[in-house]
Amino acid sequence: MKKVYLDHVATTPVLPEVLEAMLPYFKDAYGNAQSLHDWGDESREAIEDARSRVADLIGAQAEEIIFTSSGTESNNFAIKGLAMAQQSKGKHIVVSAIEHFSVLHSARTLEKWGFEMTQVPVDRYGMINPDEVSRSLRKDTVLVSIMHGNSEVGTIQPIKEIAELAKEAGAIFHTDAVATAGTIPVDVRELKLDALSLAGNQFYGPKGVGALWLKKGLRIIPFLDGGVQEGGKRPGTENIPAIVGMGKAAELAKAEMESRIHRFSALRDKLIAGLLSRLEHVILTGHPTQRLPGNASFCVEFIEGEAMLMLLNHQGIAASSGSACTSRALKASHVLIAMGIPHEVAQGSLLFSFGLENTEEDVDYVLEALPPIVDRLRQMSPLYAKFLKSQKGGE
Amino acid sequence: MKKVYLDHVATTPVLPEVLEAMLPYFKDAYGNAQSLHDWGDESREAIEDARSRVADLIGAQAEEIIFTSSGTESNNFAIKGLAMAQQSKGKHIVVSAIEHFSVLHSARTLEKWGFEMTQVPVDRYGMINPDEVSRSLRKDTVLVSIMHGNSEVGTIQPIKEIAELAKEAGAIFHTDAVATAGTIPVDVRELKLDALSLAGNQFYGPKGVGALWLKKGLRIIPFLDGGVQEGGKRPGTENIPAIVGMGKAAELAKAEMESRIHRFSALRDKLIAGLLSRLEHVILTGHPTQRLPGNASFCVEFIEGEAMLMLLNHQGIAASSGSACTSRALKASHVLIAMGIPHEVAQGSLLFSFGLENTEEDVDYVLEALPPIVDRLRQMSPLYAKFLKSQKGGE
Repeated sequence: MKKVYLDHVATTPVLPEVLEAMLPYFKDAYGNAQSLHDWGDESREAIEDARSRVADLIGAQAEEIIFTSSGTESNNFAIKGLAMAQQSKGKHIVVSAIEHFSVLHSARTLEKWGFEMTQVPVDRYGMINPDEVSRSLRKDTVLVSIMHGNSEVGTIQPIKEIAELAKEAGAIFHTDAVATAGTIPVDVRELKLDALSLAGNQFYGPKGVGALWLKKGLRIIPFLDGGVQEGGKRPGTENIPAIVGMGKAAELAKAEMESRIHRFSALRDKLIAGLLSRLEHVILTGHPTQRLPGNASFCVEFIEGEAMLMLLNHQGIAASSGSACTSRALKASHVLIAMGIPHEVAQGSLLFSFGLENTEEDVDYVLEALPPIVDRLRQMSPLYAKFLKSQKGGE
Repeated sequence: MKKVYLDHVATTPVLPEVLEAMLPYFKDAYGNAQSLHDWGDESREAIEDARSRVADLIGAQAEEIIFTSSGTESNNFAIKGLAMAQQSKGKHIVVSAIEHFSVLHSARTLEKWGFEMTQVPVDRYGMINPDEVSRSLRKDTVLVSIMHGNSEVGTIQPIKEIAELAKEAGAIFHTDAVATAGTIPVDVRELKLDALSLAGNQFYGPKGVGALWLKKGLRIIPFLDGGVQEGGKRPGTENIPAIVGMGKAAELAKAEMESRIHRFSALRDKLIAGLLSRLEHVILTGHPTQRLPGNASFCVEFIEGEAMLMLLNHQGIAASSGSACTSRALKASHVLIAMGIPHEVAQGSLLFSFGLENTEEDVDYVLEALPPIVDRLRQMSPLYAKFLKSQKGGE
């Protein structure tokens, strides 16, 4: 059976060049980077080399990069660590309603610690109006965290404008760029950011490594307590092979970014146009143009996303129904709900995300496979029966 | 030049069989374990298989294992998460004076959050007297965390006796077993534990993965906020290759444990006997018999550990002067100070730790290399000159 992986938003494979760069650090150059001998030196140099590559990807300086274990850890570290470091100035933070749970739930933890949180709404395209951010800012606002791109619906936010507003109001601005760093151009100076989270497994690097960029001089309370690694900001034995892999992946992502964007956008647009023309009662979710290049997200009315995923999987197609981090909770996505999509429509969420190994044939395969699946599920759907009946009644 | 790695306490290499088990999960079976398709299923099964192997290593049930990114994260999670979950019952915790900084500093963070902390002292061998633990227990003690084995001086604690005392007093008992799990037999039921931290890179697994064992039914507050991974207890995309590697390493560690202990102990004892007979003014640190099989730790009087490390490194020998997590801070070890070793003697700390690739020849090489290094450094040492003068004066 043909196998088509269209779930790159959940995680990408590791590129052969990336794995090759990592391999020496498992068996041969295995020293602890803190150790005072040649084995340690070699590991330390590998980390610093990777740090430069990751910094290069986002227009940062190497010493501003802190390696973590994941995008989730970077977000926890940023939200909690930056807010706590500023708490003498104020205890109000601002996030958007469509943040990843590692940001939203960290903000809720801050509420338990005495902070107040304002959630900025989004429009029907999942877009944040900078005026709404302005309205949410208060004298005691110390931190604003708005994601750069939303992986579930693809919408890319006007992050520079929002960052400027936050900073004019005296707040620190953090962005969760897990969906964008390594995928579209991100320049921390040009975007006027203070802090940014990214993850290696979103751009063909390995799982188990993320990074937090912190503008030089910005104070943060460490999230993990322990040793002196990462300039005293993030303890724990450094995961050297993964860090090296993230560095190599960052280098490749920067070099190939334009061609990747071009390729992924073409595949995405073909799939969107094809599905919308072949299927009725399907809506494209997210912004029609301001969206991630590889992201084609829909709501298919009258049926459940999980049922579609199961039948697509029987045809060898991997897709998703929202964030992998919550997929097994089987609840309607908080992102779609925040966009004003009715609960029963949000249940039919379906997300295809493209990557380097995908071809036009893959799109054709999905365009052929999906319509009969939708038909079959609708035939069993009480919601669809009700809809048909209401249509007849209306005639 | 001959190369002799004797710093396994900082980190072990990854065994070829372990790396081989990991490789498929980078490039081919790369799915996100939360995803609802074949790629996800394959990753999920790999994690569950590894979970069983890690559980087997410590006599636990698979569903009691939570994977983390490191021993440091496991310790942060346990100390903060268990104490916070119990805070309505009381706000007092007990740790030992020689814990790793990921435990000690987590306990200090709890102090900032309103807890009180008691540090139990150790004797000159780094051994904890259970009576001291008894004396530290109060009605409001909710958590006792005492390490199983100390990697800097090798001493293994009477953890079962301590656990029983803690639990009789109604407290939860956690142990940092990063230095022992995978190295010596550890059975969580036999030792009467409630929670235990371990790390993959201490027994020939990869860096970037640790685990927390939590006795079934024990409540904990998650340390990281985010998605639903690890039963809702530890979010973030699972680091599948590293988890698989830790599982394989656990299986091998269990199967080979007896022979590894036998081999490492023989090398350790040969080095200890050889150095003590060849060098004057050298003391063995830690307990003479209740110690980790691969651990030979000393204080060499009148000189600095870092200077010895540098000259040993010139001869191709990797050793350490305490914990890698603090080695670059160049301060005297809090472990040695807690054992009552004078500050100037503690500065001469020198630790050799054995692993699978070491041989008797390696020991002979060190026994030949070290005495001239010590002589050379002592000739330049004002402390040694002073000592010689005082000896003459005393004659």
